[in-house]
Amino acid sequence: MLGARCLLWAVRFCSSAPCPRHKPSAKLSVRDALGAQNTSGERVKVQGWVRSVRSQKEVLFLHVNDGSSLESLQVVADSSLDSRELTFGSSVEVQGQLVKSPSKRQNVELKAENIKVIGNCDAKTFPIRYKERHPLEYLRQYPHLRCRTNILGSILRIRSEATAAIHSFFKDNGFVHIHTPIITSNDCEGAGELFQLEAAGKIKIPEENFFNVPAFLTVSGQLHLEVMSGAFTQVFTFGPTFRAENSQSRRHLAEFYMIEAEISFVDSLQDLMQVMEKLFKATTMMVLSNCPEDVKLCYKFIAPGQKDRLEHMLKNNFLIISYTEAVEILKRASQNFTFTPEVAAVDLLVPGVGELFGGGLREERYHFLEERLARSRLTEVYQWYLDLRRFGSVPHGGFGMGFERYLQCILGVDNIKDVIPFPRFPHSCLL
Amino acid sequence: MLGARCLLWAVRFCSSAPCPRHKPSAKLSVRDALGAQNTSGERVKVQGWVRSVRSQKEVLFLHVNDGSSLESLQVVADSSLDSRELTFGSSVEVQGQLVKSPSKRQNVELKAENIKVIGNCDAKTFPIRYKERHPLEYLRQYPHLRCRTNILGSILRIRSEATAAIHSFFKDNGFVHIHTPIITSNDCEGAGELFQLEAAGKIKIPEENFFNVPAFLTVSGQLHLEVMSGAFTQVFTFGPTFRAENSQSRRHLAEFYMIEAEISFVDSLQDLMQVMEKLFKATTMMVLSNCPEDVKLCYKFIAPGQKDRLEHMLKNNFLIISYTEAVEILKRASQNFTFTPEVAAVDLLVPGVGELFGGGLREERYHFLEERLARSRLTEVYQWYLDLRRFGSVPHGGFGMGFERYLQCILGVDNIKDVIPFPRFPHSCLL
Repeated sequence: MLGARCLLWAVRFCSSAPCPRHKPSAKLSVRDALGAQNTSGERVKVQGWVRSVRSQKEVLFLHVNDGSSLESLQVVADSSLDSRELTFGSSVEVQGQLVKSPSKRQNVELKAENIKVIGNCDAKTFPIRYKERHPLEYLRQYPHLRCRTNILGSILRIRSEATAAIHSFFKDNGFVHIHTPIITSNDCEGAGELFQLEAAGKIKIPEENFFNVPAFLTVSGQLHLEVMSGAFTQVFTFGPTFRAENSQSRRHLAEFYMIEAEISFVDSLQDLMQVMEKLFKATTMMVLSNCPEDVKLCYKFIAPGQKDRLEHMLKNNFLIISYTEAVEILKRASQNFTFTPEVAAVDLLVPGVGELFGGGLREERYHFLEERLARSRLTEVYQWYLDLRRFGSVPHGGFGMGFERYLQCILGVDNIKDVIPFPRFPHSCLL
Repeated sequence: MLGARCLLWAVRFCSSAPCPRHKPSAKLSVRDALGAQNTSGERVKVQGWVRSVRSQKEVLFLHVNDGSSLESLQVVADSSLDSRELTFGSSVEVQGQLVKSPSKRQNVELKAENIKVIGNCDAKTFPIRYKERHPLEYLRQYPHLRCRTNILGSILRIRSEATAAIHSFFKDNGFVHIHTPIITSNDCEGAGELFQLEAAGKIKIPEENFFNVPAFLTVSGQLHLEVMSGAFTQVFTFGPTFRAENSQSRRHLAEFYMIEAEISFVDSLQDLMQVMEKLFKATTMMVLSNCPEDVKLCYKFIAPGQKDRLEHMLKNNFLIISYTEAVEILKRASQNFTFTPEVAAVDLLVPGVGELFGGGLREERYHFLEERLARSRLTEVYQWYLDLRRFGSVPHGGFGMGFERYLQCILGVDNIKDVIPFPRFPHSCLL
């Protein structure tokens, strides 16, 4: 409806005749302009949104940001180029010369010859105010505009960088990436807090399931990764997972992202813990080195002190404590246990966020598993899972890491709703 | 249930005391063993699944594969190491020396000192037969085992490589990656063929929506990318999308992956087409150069001739034809049109697959959009979308590429169900 994709131009392969091409313009992103080595009057075009306007008698100063970096490009122009439309939030196209800046605040500035306002922005109705530092709670009301603030811009650029770093880590370590299914007829964790789905028209006709069986949104890709670890030895997935949990906590979402890995031929929890620790450290180091300004902004305005805590984590080995020790610590804190402990599992707990990783060794012995499934009358449904133990079974294990909690942990962001572009939780599905 | 994640070991940060570490073994993946430069009797351990067994009077030959590459490692052992358990599909651990192979078929082989069978595999019940080339249709019945065949192994390794290549392409070109939401209250394309979802217990109580509003699985991340292109200029997403379409065709799935990009400050369709063509070519070149053996296998057994067709595509510019020309071609083919053409859209059609890319310029003018929304009585619901045009609006556009169709196109795979690990389509949600 809004952006229909219909056939109008058709692009076909297999012509060896050269086509007319659009001539590339001297367009530069703000990031590239700021990093430009050649400032001997190169003529460029920069496009973005106005972050500040300062009009003096003879000179007009603008700061233009296009989201390619936290830093904006300073534009200097003759005040005759000023106009009432040049306001905070408006979109502009500036043409001029990149020159060395006389100020110490930046290396480069753009001496404007022409400034074109592309889209206006009315300061009175724009929910983001000029030079105001809005609380994160306030910004949550505007999921379509909050990405234009410095702080959300930085968090989302870091999220993008962390995503790339995680893919790199696994690729460099010989893991095969698997898209585990979103729609599944399994209930991996037996949690029960599932979203069920159905073709929109049929949602109230249970006998007419689209897939012939009740279908749910995945809570974990673990079982599907177990399938794949039986072929590729080391596999991972990085995708959305879901819980229909009625929780409004600052650490839960109905839709969140998980990084999950499964490894064949592991002998011990130590093997898994090593990969978990390496993943955490390698990803974090890459984020810190690729987004230093964005990370600095988070530490400055959200979590002073987080920098030192994170550096401490990166420098030292993670502390491993046994179940018995954990019980002792919890007893001293006079907490009650409501769960039954099982063997060969591992959790990574981090300050402020709680459980970040969960992992364990899987049952690879056919007869043990068969017995347990028979007791729960699940043998038929999980025959395929038994098959994995029937044909060339191997000891294997894996783990999952909550991606939003990871971001909360490294950046010190208190509420999980601020590290995901469009948060979904009970009673809220904005946009 | 099956692999419960409970607290048993707790890993905590912030100890500076060194922890006891698991001593790394001389484990090698098959891929690394095959590529080893040092074959002067290095002692290694290789783990994997038996792909072939050949027992001679005095010598036993095994081929062991661990999914790290298409090629298996040849293991040579004294026939005294043979056992009845060493069958096709069984899992083994082999220790021995990596030596230069006397045969021309491989550079390296493993002279075994010890062979341990880890998991048996009964040839009589194992659905994958030794030395048999099963049709893809047959393998589709066994989504949990088909990844252990050469052909599915190759396709899924290529899929993993293409995923990484796509992330690299966008990162190298300054795009910010955005996780657009899976659950949404929008209906982007107005298609109507949506999956609706609800907390499992409440699915038949429409007045008790989990999110307070009816919620659906996304059909496109376009609108959410438009939000983000207003902050970061160039954004992309690569995630699952859904259609509750009752189609059993070889080109449709109920759950499939899309790469979508949105770019601010684009002036023309040519700008978009350039990015589409670059994306296609860069990704394909990376796949061809990183997975030559896997690609070769596909061409050999699935699509002879596809190699030449693809090389032709890569060498030449894509042919661009206008809407009028497309109409002429379709008329000659005496097809009927059932759609109304709209302006400023582009499709990329490829032989054998059909529509691979769809894209277009978006309406950035506030008043035009407002009028259209008012006519459809959607102004209130899409106020946020109007806001994007109210505050610093810019001309922008974007495109989507179906990832499975892309894989079909480059590999010549006829049926879309063979290029995704766990296909979902009407009446089928296996595993």
